[in-house]
Amino acid sequence: MKSLESYLPYIQKAIDEHLQNPDFAEPAGLYEPCKYILQNGGKRVRASLVLMATKLFSGEFEKALPVALAFETFHNFTLIHDDIMDKASIRRGIPTVHVKWDENTAILSGDAVMIIAYRFFEESGEYVPQLFKLLNKTALEVCEGQQYDVDLEKSSLDDSFVSEEMYIKMIELKTSVLLAACLNAGAIVGGASKEDEKKMYEIGRQIGIAFQLQDDLLDTYGNQKTFGKKIGGDIQVNKKTYLLIKALETLQGKDKDQLINLMQTNSLEESDKYSKVVALYDKANVKKQTIDKIQEYFKNAMSLVDSIQLPDERKGELTAFMNELVNRNY
Amino acid sequence: MKSLESYLPYIQKAIDEHLQNPDFAEPAGLYEPCKYILQNGGKRVRASLVLMATKLFSGEFEKALPVALAFETFHNFTLIHDDIMDKASIRRGIPTVHVKWDENTAILSGDAVMIIAYRFFEESGEYVPQLFKLLNKTALEVCEGQQYDVDLEKSSLDDSFVSEEMYIKMIELKTSVLLAACLNAGAIVGGASKEDEKKMYEIGRQIGIAFQLQDDLLDTYGNQKTFGKKIGGDIQVNKKTYLLIKALETLQGKDKDQLINLMQTNSLEESDKYSKVVALYDKANVKKQTIDKIQEYFKNAMSLVDSIQLPDERKGELTAFMNELVNRNY
Repeated sequence: MKSLESYLPYIQKAIDEHLQNPDFAEPAGLYEPCKYILQNGGKRVRASLVLMATKLFSGEFEKALPVALAFETFHNFTLIHDDIMDKASIRRGIPTVHVKWDENTAILSGDAVMIIAYRFFEESGEYVPQLFKLLNKTALEVCEGQQYDVDLEKSSLDDSFVSEEMYIKMIELKTSVLLAACLNAGAIVGGASKEDEKKMYEIGRQIGIAFQLQDDLLDTYGNQKTFGKKIGGDIQVNKKTYLLIKALETLQGKDKDQLINLMQTNSLEESDKYSKVVALYDKANVKKQTIDKIQEYFKNAMSLVDSIQLPDERKGELTAFMNELVNRNY
Repeated sequence: MKSLESYLPYIQKAIDEHLQNPDFAEPAGLYEPCKYILQNGGKRVRASLVLMATKLFSGEFEKALPVALAFETFHNFTLIHDDIMDKASIRRGIPTVHVKWDENTAILSGDAVMIIAYRFFEESGEYVPQLFKLLNKTALEVCEGQQYDVDLEKSSLDDSFVSEEMYIKMIELKTSVLLAACLNAGAIVGGASKEDEKKMYEIGRQIGIAFQLQDDLLDTYGNQKTFGKKIGGDIQVNKKTYLLIKALETLQGKDKDQLINLMQTNSLEESDKYSKVVALYDKANVKKQTIDKIQEYFKNAMSLVDSIQLPDERKGELTAFMNELVNRNY
């Protein structure tokens, strides 16, 4: 992401330096997988958000580097364990830890990565108690989100548990509270007021939800070239997305029954299933309903940004990021 | 253990109260397994050691309860994940989490239990930064110990990696640093001097190693009635214990070859294998060698206890615990 690019070299350098610590040498069977995931880091969205938030309030983002790495490292811990649970074999273009090594290694090195995340806070001085509480709360919520995701995937489509409310709650916990905590943590280090801290948290929570809804939208309605992965993957694996839940809520009678049948089958030819499901989605007008919902969260977040008492030019980076996130077609 | 019994009701009550927090209600799929392991707690050795250490220095052990629960909870996290890795089906007389539920549930609820452990520190006020560092360091070391255990079990018996030094390092990291940290943490809350804190850590480290060696000894030379589990289990599953490593170090030529052959086979009838291996252990005099080693660690620990400048009657509980631990036949 362009709005975050300026932070990447700082983050990469700080991670590389940290991992050269002789504490992380032996046993290699434990620390090699930790380094493997932490060094192949992707876009470093979470670390960048911490730094961006600190810069917004104090200008001096570098003092937030340990906190940024704590949240980024925590995120990587969740990826190692989630990939085991989801039986995912590729992450950021390379084999997942449990595939490259084995499940036991992935469990144990995931645990170590979580502890390494906490360790970064040792360098955060006066802010430790507040940041520590924030990470603890967020970390448990992320686990809750993962469990709700499992619970949703296990539920049948006509179960009342499968609702818009529960879906939003799940993505809020699984994805957006961590983005929210990153903006909040950066604000803490930047010396923001309590009120602005809360606003930053809420901005992260709102754009996190918008981001996930956008992800659902692009998986069905995106352009394969720009999205980078195959369109229709969620439909193919019967994933419970916002689109599906909204369509089930909107459709009635035969249409609803047909959609339920389609989204319980694995036997249909892929493109045939995709076009039949999309036809029903179109009938339920879910594309527009989803875009409207994304805009709602985006606008809420934007008005919170507006309400922060800082010169507009200071906020340019954050608003650029938010625009990128929600208007992306990738 | 008799020396710890007085703390058990306090610990149990504090855990029960903590788990009634509405934060730990939903999703039940996440928190039920957490409560399941935390409430079926066993002897609560780690929590008791924290309280005992605080009482030693300040008399007021109750203020250390959150810290005691943090370490006890951390220990339970390691059990959930270790049981997956070891494919253990029974823990404290009931099915392990991954057996009662499934592996994914055990991974995720184990993660949550670790975070809950950290959360207890939020209630530890002024001591947070110091305790936090201690738990972080210890937690990573426990992961390292688990990895060394895996590495040792994977190594062939003639590999130079399989040595007394590596074995002691493994049990030190896997078991004894946590006991050490518990005594250290209790001392911190009890207001001990830096010097006494270090001594308490070292006492825990030494008795932790002695404890594990005693465990190895009892598994082969114990009395089934008092030990509570079948004698010879380690020999049956070819486990690399202190006894085996010491015997391999002592025996030569044909005897050594025979022991290596015996400890690579799974085809021998159980009692036949046991008596043949024990005959070689006896030839190598490993029972005495192990007892001597245990006594060495025990004496080191005792002389550290002596060196703490407190009236002897204050130390009675700690020395009683140490005697129980090392002279146990269970």
